Amino acid sequence: MEFSKLLQQIAFIIEIDKLKYIQRKTKLFNSDRCENDAEHSWHLAMMTIILAEHANSPIDVLKVLKMVLIHDIVEIDAGDTFIYDTGKSHDNTEEELLGAKRIFGLLPSDQANELIEIWLEFENGITEEAKFARSMDRFEPLLQNTSNNGGTWAEFNVNYDKVYNKKKAIERGSSSIWKYAENLLNESVEKGILKK
Amino acid sequence: MEFSKLLQQIAFIIEIDKLKYIQRKTKLFNSDRCENDAEHSWHLAMMTIILAEHANSPIDVLKVLKMVLIHDIVEIDAGDTFIYDTGKSHDNTEEELLGAKRIFGLLPSDQANELIEIWLEFENGITEEAKFARSMDRFEPLLQNTSNNGGTWAEFNVNYDKVYNKKKAIERGSSSIWKYAENLLNESVEKGILKK
Repeated sequence: MEFSKLLQQIAFIIEIDKLKYIQRKTKLFNSDRCENDAEHSWHLAMMTIILAEHANSPIDVLKVLKMVLIHDIVEIDAGDTFIYDTGKSHDNTEEELLGAKRIFGLLPSDQANELIEIWLEFENGITEEAKFARSMDRFEPLLQNTSNNGGTWAEFNVNYDKVYNKKKAIERGSSSIWKYAENLLNESVEKGILKK
Repeated sequence: MEFSKLLQQIAFIIEIDKLKYIQRKTKLFNSDRCENDAEHSWHLAMMTIILAEHANSPIDVLKVLKMVLIHDIVEIDAGDTFIYDTGKSHDNTEEELLGAKRIFGLLPSDQANELIEIWLEFENGITEEAKFARSMDRFEPLLQNTSNNGGTWAEFNVNYDKVYNKKKAIERGSSSIWKYAENLLNESVEKGILKK
């Protein structure tokens, strides 16, 4: 029996279980329990399926699903970086690249190469698929924070301008979702859960 | 601005956050922490991407991803049923069907109908996509239990025959993964973590 390829794939499947232990700063909806990266990735995948029709340009949904499902796997090695942490780089760090090579490298080389490329495509944010995937990644915590009286914005004293500048990336994936998101930010200011 | 469709979609996206609270009986790999349904669904989606090439017949990967990502959403209303619990029905119960109608029914009707159909297709297990999705759903806890010294098999005194009969469904999706799984069951018996 020739199991060698399957054995590599199963080693990868077991390794990525660790994503369930990587805690994010944002909390579940109406909750004080932190979300982990596996839950977050599942939620972005569901959002992709449901919201794909709002993309600015037609997108390859399967490609976007792969992106959002794998986008945080490098954090098994590199850890989660809080988006408003100004002391750390958020771009495609050396640490993340090493993580990608180690973890995806557990797979047979054709699959390893495919997933590293998809991860880099997501990181670079240039293709329509990457723009849409990144807009989902920005939109989920916005919804969570508004459900949690400001959530991490309140907890870490992040003001409207900083939030706006990060969230504006949603527009590159979907201008209609961005209109909704912008309204939500304005409402948050009115409610006093996001400071100008 | 016409947000009504988007508002329905966002109501659904917020509602399904509850999947993160539905605890399964099986534990994470090498762990005593229970897995929740959102983590489980993410893991099945990753397994689908990685293992699709082992399917007995060519499969529509996007369709299988939708299946595994949504397959447990009805448990938000119906709760998780332990696979070796002989006191409860595991088929497509009335409670699950009501859950599907309520939760997917939050979506615009075209999407609600599509997801209810995909969920029923998974439950019925007849198409190639459903057979493969169901094989992933059986394979993940097998890997987890072998990593946890028998896991739920040991905890709930489930013997080899019962496990074998449930796991044999893997073969309908992939005979090569089933060969691997069968070996793993035999090894588990040899190691004494699964009783004949």
